Amino acid sequence: MGSEPLREFDLIRWIQRETPADGRVLIGIGDDCALVANRGPSSLITTDMLVDRVHFDLREATPRQVGWKAMACSVSDIAAMGGRSLAAVVSCALPRGFSADDAHELVRGLLDCAGEFDICLVGGDLTGTDGPLVINVALLGDTGGRPPVRRSGARPGDALLVTGALGGSLLGRHLCFRPRQAEGLILNEQYALHAMMDISDGLAIDLHHILDESSVGARVWAAQVPISEDARRAAERSGRSPLDHALGDGEDYELLFTMDEASAGRLLAERPFETPVTRIGSITETVRSAGLSPCRAFEERPEGRTTNPRSGALLVLPDGAERPLERKGWEHTV
Amino acid sequence: MGSEPLREFDLIRWIQRETPADGRVLIGIGDDCALVANRGPSSLITTDMLVDRVHFDLREATPRQVGWKAMACSVSDIAAMGGRSLAAVVSCALPRGFSADDAHELVRGLLDCAGEFDICLVGGDLTGTDGPLVINVALLGDTGGRPPVRRSGARPGDALLVTGALGGSLLGRHLCFRPRQAEGLILNEQYALHAMMDISDGLAIDLHHILDESSVGARVWAAQVPISEDARRAAERSGRSPLDHALGDGEDYELLFTMDEASAGRLLAERPFETPVTRIGSITETVRSAGLSPCRAFEERPEGRTTNPRSGALLVLPDGAERPLERKGWEHTV
Repeated sequence: MGSEPLREFDLIRWIQRETPADGRVLIGIGDDCALVANRGPSSLITTDMLVDRVHFDLREATPRQVGWKAMACSVSDIAAMGGRSLAAVVSCALPRGFSADDAHELVRGLLDCAGEFDICLVGGDLTGTDGPLVINVALLGDTGGRPPVRRSGARPGDALLVTGALGGSLLGRHLCFRPRQAEGLILNEQYALHAMMDISDGLAIDLHHILDESSVGARVWAAQVPISEDARRAAERSGRSPLDHALGDGEDYELLFTMDEASAGRLLAERPFETPVTRIGSITETVRSAGLSPCRAFEERPEGRTTNPRSGALLVLPDGAERPLERKGWEHTV
Repeated sequence: MGSEPLREFDLIRWIQRETPADGRVLIGIGDDCALVANRGPSSLITTDMLVDRVHFDLREATPRQVGWKAMACSVSDIAAMGGRSLAAVVSCALPRGFSADDAHELVRGLLDCAGEFDICLVGGDLTGTDGPLVINVALLGDTGGRPPVRRSGARPGDALLVTGALGGSLLGRHLCFRPRQAEGLILNEQYALHAMMDISDGLAIDLHHILDESSVGARVWAAQVPISEDARRAAERSGRSPLDHALGDGEDYELLFTMDEASAGRLLAERPFETPVTRIGSITETVRSAGLSPCRAFEERPEGRTTNPRSGALLVLPDGAERPLERKGWEHTV
């Protein structure tokens, strides 16, 4: 923490100076609202709130990293629709003792990420708090004329794919990850995506959002799940398996998506971008395998109650055995 | 506080059920982003973050009132540009012990206000916190084909006007105020507004934002400032004057605006809406009256330093004497 005291209006003026001019911004920082030129008939909008000790820890993360992460989380939501980001408004509740230097670094982190993804910072709100630092980024975007890719379009027979490698993000990657906007745009432009989302809570949980919304099931091939080096390092410390970390850690901000088999084959042959893409399984009809009770979240399934879920996922182990892929607490069931 | 524990996904499903369908929402709650139909070539966007013990106090305010206020503050920003609200995304950091009942009431308050102003709640983000409740509303709007009204358009010779009555809002009005969106739209459609903003920090501070942005000064007629009944009640308790409360309390969310003399005369004759409008002064060239050092904020003017401010305001007392209208700490200088 620096030593210079923080003055709200000084900070706003500093942010105004640091923010590059942009023709898409008709009214920027400093009025009651910003005014942004629309780029099509509709706008994507998302909002993400990050809280100290929940989504980052200022005892370990720098304010600049926190700023990057706050912007990047929202960019990842736009990417998950196959969209491109346009303009952001940022709100911060700054704790007592947060210095001007800290605030400048926080804003620099926001602007680092905004610059990388051609995003205009157009406005915001600053307040104090007796609690932890809270930062909220609301982000506008559009789909560049393409239909947005929803969670609800997965179909039985689809291939299930993921970008990058999963697990162990909390060792540090969650503070500096690069959201997959370029990849999402290419996927949406060049391939017939059926469903997509970004992995924030972990593959095991987030896959179920696609399955629920699409009313389908899935088989995930355990041996194909791309396991990050961080997941292996985390496993050495935790005593759990690297696969366990890859399925459950979350904060990966990789894209999880489905498309038909032929398109998936073409994608894997063409490799239209450097980021790895891995096929990890298939979409199925709703899973009702013999003897296996496919899982809803624990909170929805009181002990001992038999459910007939709309959807579910099975994890196919290397020996061919199948187990339910629980949407939470996976590490306790395998 | 209620007793039912809060489950994030249950709450999201509850919100989905409570949110009316709307043709302007192409994708609503439940995906990575919302998709909203644009109503014109550009979009207004604003964000407001409210924190417990700073902007409200849950020991006195109900969660439903907090929800109303959170939405209404953002509507007031849209109103201050002469715009109309369209779609909101809401983020909440919920403290430990915040029950499902509390959360439902908070959302009901948001939806109460959204319903009043024809706003679609299209998405959001929920997290926990060890700190106080934080709620952020980011709001999209547009100007219905009219130019937006900025803070920077005030001209010397303009009349300075305000809606409603000021002061004492913290006695309760700040939790249930009705943002002046309808009034702002009528003003923007039917009169040639030069500058406008909403009063959140108090007339004495907020007027200076218009003056700074427009590089003009102002004379405010003390006897014409509309003083609310709340300001009089607050003055009985504080020992300060009702005028002092009207100038400095803030949280009024009334519109402060300027237009040429002829338009102001027509507005005051026509009274196009029920909400009172009062002329409280005039815009001048930059104020440099003899012997009076017009004020910048205290933090910008070290003791004893002579400044040549870009702008400034004078308060014209009933006896004709003029005093600087300080942008903060007004009560300590008069």
